[in-house]
Amino acid sequence: MIKPIELIGQAIKEGRLSLNEAESKTLLSQYGLPIVEETVVVSEEAAVAQAQVMGFPVVLKGLGSKLTHKTERGLVKLNLWSVEDVHRAYHEIQASAGADLEGCLLQPLVLGRREFVAGLFRDSQFGLVVMFGLGGVFTEVIKDVVFRIAPLTEIQARRMMEELSSRILLDDFRGESAVDKEAMIRVLIGLSRLGMEHPEIMEVDINPLLITPRGEVTAVDALVVISPIESSAKDDPSRKEPTREEMEAINSALEVMAHAKSIAVVGATRSRVQGFSGMFANVSAFGFPGRLYPINPNTEEIDGYKTFPDLVSLPEPMDLVIISVPAPMVPEALKDCIASGNKNVHIFTSGFKETGEEEGNRLQAEIEKIAREGGLRVLGPNCMGLYVPESRMVTWAGASVEKGPVAFVSQSGGNAGDFTSYAASRFGIYFSKVFSYGNALTLDSTDFLEYLSHDDQTRIIAMYLEGVKNGQRLLRQITEINRTKPVIILKGGLTASGARAVASHTGSLAGGEKIWKAFFRQSGAVQVDSLEEMTDVTLAFLNLGESRGQRVAVIGTGGGIGVAAADGCAKVGLDLPALPGATMNKLREFIPPAGNMIRNPIDAHIVFLELDLLGQSLDLLSTGSTIDMFVLALHLDWFSENGTGKQVEKIAHYIAGEARKRTHNLPLVVVWRQYQPDPDIRQSRIILEQILLKAGVPVYEGLPRAFLVLSKLAEYHQFQRQLKL
Amino acid sequence: MIKPIELIGQAIKEGRLSLNEAESKTLLSQYGLPIVEETVVVSEEAAVAQAQVMGFPVVLKGLGSKLTHKTERGLVKLNLWSVEDVHRAYHEIQASAGADLEGCLLQPLVLGRREFVAGLFRDSQFGLVVMFGLGGVFTEVIKDVVFRIAPLTEIQARRMMEELSSRILLDDFRGESAVDKEAMIRVLIGLSRLGMEHPEIMEVDINPLLITPRGEVTAVDALVVISPIESSAKDDPSRKEPTREEMEAINSALEVMAHAKSIAVVGATRSRVQGFSGMFANVSAFGFPGRLYPINPNTEEIDGYKTFPDLVSLPEPMDLVIISVPAPMVPEALKDCIASGNKNVHIFTSGFKETGEEEGNRLQAEIEKIAREGGLRVLGPNCMGLYVPESRMVTWAGASVEKGPVAFVSQSGGNAGDFTSYAASRFGIYFSKVFSYGNALTLDSTDFLEYLSHDDQTRIIAMYLEGVKNGQRLLRQITEINRTKPVIILKGGLTASGARAVASHTGSLAGGEKIWKAFFRQSGAVQVDSLEEMTDVTLAFLNLGESRGQRVAVIGTGGGIGVAAADGCAKVGLDLPALPGATMNKLREFIPPAGNMIRNPIDAHIVFLELDLLGQSLDLLSTGSTIDMFVLALHLDWFSENGTGKQVEKIAHYIAGEARKRTHNLPLVVVWRQYQPDPDIRQSRIILEQILLKAGVPVYEGLPRAFLVLSKLAEYHQFQRQLKL
Repeated sequence: MIKPIELIGQAIKEGRLSLNEAESKTLLSQYGLPIVEETVVVSEEAAVAQAQVMGFPVVLKGLGSKLTHKTERGLVKLNLWSVEDVHRAYHEIQASAGADLEGCLLQPLVLGRREFVAGLFRDSQFGLVVMFGLGGVFTEVIKDVVFRIAPLTEIQARRMMEELSSRILLDDFRGESAVDKEAMIRVLIGLSRLGMEHPEIMEVDINPLLITPRGEVTAVDALVVISPIESSAKDDPSRKEPTREEMEAINSALEVMAHAKSIAVVGATRSRVQGFSGMFANVSAFGFPGRLYPINPNTEEIDGYKTFPDLVSLPEPMDLVIISVPAPMVPEALKDCIASGNKNVHIFTSGFKETGEEEGNRLQAEIEKIAREGGLRVLGPNCMGLYVPESRMVTWAGASVEKGPVAFVSQSGGNAGDFTSYAASRFGIYFSKVFSYGNALTLDSTDFLEYLSHDDQTRIIAMYLEGVKNGQRLLRQITEINRTKPVIILKGGLTASGARAVASHTGSLAGGEKIWKAFFRQSGAVQVDSLEEMTDVTLAFLNLGESRGQRVAVIGTGGGIGVAAADGCAKVGLDLPALPGATMNKLREFIPPAGNMIRNPIDAHIVFLELDLLGQSLDLLSTGSTIDMFVLALHLDWFSENGTGKQVEKIAHYIAGEARKRTHNLPLVVVWRQYQPDPDIRQSRIILEQILLKAGVPVYEGLPRAFLVLSKLAEYHQFQRQLKL
Repeated sequence: MIKPIELIGQAIKEGRLSLNEAESKTLLSQYGLPIVEETVVVSEEAAVAQAQVMGFPVVLKGLGSKLTHKTERGLVKLNLWSVEDVHRAYHEIQASAGADLEGCLLQPLVLGRREFVAGLFRDSQFGLVVMFGLGGVFTEVIKDVVFRIAPLTEIQARRMMEELSSRILLDDFRGESAVDKEAMIRVLIGLSRLGMEHPEIMEVDINPLLITPRGEVTAVDALVVISPIESSAKDDPSRKEPTREEMEAINSALEVMAHAKSIAVVGATRSRVQGFSGMFANVSAFGFPGRLYPINPNTEEIDGYKTFPDLVSLPEPMDLVIISVPAPMVPEALKDCIASGNKNVHIFTSGFKETGEEEGNRLQAEIEKIAREGGLRVLGPNCMGLYVPESRMVTWAGASVEKGPVAFVSQSGGNAGDFTSYAASRFGIYFSKVFSYGNALTLDSTDFLEYLSHDDQTRIIAMYLEGVKNGQRLLRQITEINRTKPVIILKGGLTASGARAVASHTGSLAGGEKIWKAFFRQSGAVQVDSLEEMTDVTLAFLNLGESRGQRVAVIGTGGGIGVAAADGCAKVGLDLPALPGATMNKLREFIPPAGNMIRNPIDAHIVFLELDLLGQSLDLLSTGSTIDMFVLALHLDWFSENGTGKQVEKIAHYIAGEARKRTHNLPLVVVWRQYQPDPDIRQSRIILEQILLKAGVPVYEGLPRAFLVLSKLAEYHQFQRQLKL
């Protein structure tokens, strides 16, 4: 049997970019893929003779390395029932293909109405990707396809089938048997293995992958695209897998930077009264307790600090050098770093690859070369660098000095400041380490993740990502880290027109939406859509325990809440189950019927006036087996209209204390709504939030935000439970 | 030729619930639908003989009124190429169908890979609905179907084709010709006409509706379901089309109620210090200037008003009677209305159909009978009735006394109060008339719309709908009204689990999501998802002129804005076009390159510091032909960090005055973001909003809300332009 490497080698030697159908199938069959029984014939006589041996009906297809779009060119003849049919088909194929015809493929006609497609290709960020979907002539019409980043596990192959919209075709369907799912899994895993073992294979397309009426899987047609040049990933140092030593060196460098005792700012300027104060003034103003050196050859002193003309003149090596000179001067500044033995660098300056212009690209290539050759560890360029409250280190104004358990890894400097300020001031969420790394010259998100995975002060990792250089490493890391430290990701540039802006912002290529979707499904990372959503979700993960399922009970006030709760839950995939009759009967023992609905939502003002009734309700629902999570919804205007504003504070204390105990550790969040401008109510809302947040009870404005958060929590825990199975 | 009515009549006489395939096709062909040439054969010999006349290949199908699921039962034999094939097929059909076989249908085999489905059915709210979609065996798998409420116009039939996800199958596809679209339109309109003319037809299902390789349309299989009982719509008085006289009578009644000079509250109580104050106290507290009568037989006086024991004792007839007694007492109260000659009634009381319980249903049926027999005009039950600032009339606390150009028709009383309070206090949006009508005993949304269509004080109509009784009337009305007064609708209970809550809330049956989608597509009404979104959109429609397209320019500040703007636009279907090179060159004449991006977004602090540059930018972009709408995005923290908080006020004045002029009437909205808790910035935001709102410039928190609003505005105007074509 011919070896795969020989098949591919032969084709490359002949200068071909693909294997022909017969070669493709030979290769696939060696990876365990079920191929339709077939034979190559090179003459009309042979075709007829072999067809008689095979038995009718048969299929005849033209073969030839230059023959593409076979169906459209009439080179595929199905439904041949007789010797005459085969003669005619051979003639027609010859006429159409002309000199390009190298022979014909003869197959028995495989019957089956269910056609799928499977394949693989190489993505610029994630490398090898396996594809599965609805096939046949309508593949591009329906576009029902799912992806997985290789290598593929059996569980993931199974999930691919489950995620297909047309998955019911895989079950018993209109008198035809359910597909042999184990065989289908072998196809997908075989593809993954083929791609992993042969980097010279760029693409495989099996269409149709036919399901027979008995449920058998058969590859009827297949194409393998090859390339003599191996994937460029291997040559790009930023995509290379780091060795253990390299990782340890980077970890140590990041640890030194995050706890820097000495910082030099190259291009330090005096702080301005108006406009951005600059790197030096911001670091200084935040109260950095270490030794801070301004580098500026044009002045003696800046804000009371003695300046130095360059890094070489400094009295000691720096834990961190911040470069804030104009872009054309950055190469010299980096050389100065190397000359002075300073390897830990943050380049604040912009004007590189993110401009999308020639000069910016050239400058970035230049500084990358300098940095790599000099062994520099670079944050940036085009970023805000480090924010570490514990070390009193930040480069922007308005950051909180409090430290906390959340890390943030952000490709955007603006988002680094916005998210941390908003999370701190709105919800009292504080940070351990924040890395803003912009164009990722030598250090990428994967390096910060590696460091944070070992950081005991970090319990949750939030990320703003636009692109990634080594997607496979990112996937491996996040899958592992996410088991113990939830990873919450805002992916910018998911949409087609978003991708252009990403290129302009940090100069990285954003991946296709469907592949990032696969990334989230595989890693179990929590995907959010905005900084506000990231804040909401972080608050929940910080404070809530495991969610055992998706069934929510809403206890609240207000006429429209029933419909709003039902629509809101359905929108994010949560259940709002009607309570069982027995439960409703028990509720009715202490909740009077007049004006109080108890089907779920429980729409009953009385439980917020007589708070022990709220406790009893929570007790009852959380000890049953029909509810997994709680939303308590307060329509604050109601308490105002009814002269019971003070009641809000009592409710807050009750929830913070007693009510929470009576949920028996089921997740509980509070929602408030306020439509009237009453200042008393505004004040009561502020008190409500203070009391609840202090006690660790997440509190949100409006039902939709709460439902979204709970749906993410439930998905996260469900994913983690499945991993343990 | 047998007439449709005879065909159907015969089937009904025989007690059948459907026509057989041959009858169905005969009927459809009489409405102009292209039917495959076919013949009925009742013996094996006839089948063979006819097949030879017809020419091979042929198709043979078992016929019989009891024969369903023909494919699964093996009663459809395709691909018969010879006399032997026909013999064998006939035998097999006989064996499978047994005594139920009434004959066979013989057809030529129609070739074609493109299978569609078309049909009609009757919806409980919207009546006759026409359906079109991807057909064949995968119809239920792919679920690519669209609907239209009949009667269908040619434009709508064309839109149905355009809305299909798999619409590319209708064009030239893989060597097969584009479908004859005019023929397809005739099919859809023919179905609509058939359904309109024959109310005894409940359902038609044509599957497959085949497209031949030459693009011809042919109905290969069809089923017509009939019912001897005509649609119940005709018997239900609430679904009946009102006569002109009835409409005028209702309009007059609503005009009297909305400008009531005399109101009686049946079941008036003293206002309470705590808890809901009650109808009487709320009407009184709002400053109702007319004559207000409490009805309560148990006391002499309420809050200084002399009480009356019943309506008959009153000194004059009432413009409006509000009923606020417990549910079991409502029938008597209604009888009192009739006895005293009072016909305009608002029933506040709940406990009727919305409970979903037997007693509630019974009570509602009882009061409906009383109300209809007595000719009462009833708002409610289970609702808040009227809010008319001009008449100083409202039934809840906290409403604004200001009047304005927006009407609100709300099935939920809670939403009536919440939306109007929020819109007024947040954005200064005020109201002309608000109708909260709950269970819609005799007056439904369609009655209020009819009234509002003539109301000069109403420029925009907002609605919260759960269900509707006469959906066809609603569609006709809104399509018409929406041309001059934009209609903005929040539809509650769109989702499956939402539907249950709707039933419990107002006792009406919510329609399926896809039919409501058709309703929005046909009427052009603006669909929103929440009260907050309704407020945002109302603000825009009140203040912005026509949008000529979907191309947005964003001028703003902040690093992450590029990606966020691109992702945000794409999410709602807006374009964020890159500016042409010539435009960028002109911008570069006054915007320096350092730190300022100008591709769109224009990310340039300088235009907010030197405001004439903002004016110049707007001038340039609005006089080109590449931009249709503007978003100005202010990152308020930036102004704080940079000591330029006062600048925000200047910006606001500039936008409110000069900048707006320089947009040349293109829609412009302002967005602010604030992530830091700085109180100065909070104050500058409040001033910003005040200045802009006073000048009629919509202002929102965050880009997503602005993009959503602009997408709705653009869709609305595009729809209206197409109507005029």
